[in-house]
Amino acid sequence: MRIPILKLKQYLLISIQVELDDQTALQFQEDLLNKIHEEESIGVVIDLTSVDMIDSFIAKVLGDVVDMSNMMGARVVLTGIQPSVAITLIDMGIKLEEVPTALDLEQGLAKLQMELEV
Amino acid sequence: MRIPILKLKQYLLISIQVELDDQTALQFQEDLLNKIHEEESIGVVIDLTSVDMIDSFIAKVLGDVVDMSNMMGARVVLTGIQPSVAITLIDMGIKLEEVPTALDLEQGLAKLQMELEV
Repeated sequence: MRIPILKLKQYLLISIQVELDDQTALQFQEDLLNKIHEEESIGVVIDLTSVDMIDSFIAKVLGDVVDMSNMMGARVVLTGIQPSVAITLIDMGIKLEEVPTALDLEQGLAKLQMELEV
Repeated sequence: MRIPILKLKQYLLISIQVELDDQTALQFQEDLLNKIHEEESIGVVIDLTSVDMIDSFIAKVLGDVVDMSNMMGARVVLTGIQPSVAITLIDMGIKLEEVPTALDLEQGLAKLQMELEV
């Protein structure tokens, strides 16, 4: 089971609409980094609208993928974080402080464009 | 197994990156029509870049979903049709004559915007 990664201009769009088990999350991490490399993407939006539960392992994988992407030169915006996910993350002490977030895919793309123009 | 449908402004973006079995195709048909209704979308891009094989049943389901979406008021563009898929479709006598197509997601979106502005 792989999570589809859409390419739109220099951006990659991902909407996670399955329950993320550990294996799927790690596969996604690998796929995304490869895709950034292949497509020379400068920005990534990961939409979590359909994710209503997250555990500490998945949270770590997501945090890592943001750091890894940034290291490769692609800015990542997380969008659509549900209340339940936000509660879980804060309860786990994960603040995603340095990760830009936005309400939905559209605003995420707008945020990327704004950040990358600076 | 459901195919993720991304919403971007008034458009829906779908990238089919799994092998479409009959059940998945029918589920996709239903999901897409429901999503068009919910989101009041005016345009849909279905990207087939990762599909390298298609059979007559899947071709029919795709053709139907285009007609159904049009009937509901959403214009559909198919993008990224692979050579092997084009060959199979023509061999099966399916010409997709009235379906706008484009090379990739980006050009598909551009085509939609152009058509819908007329």
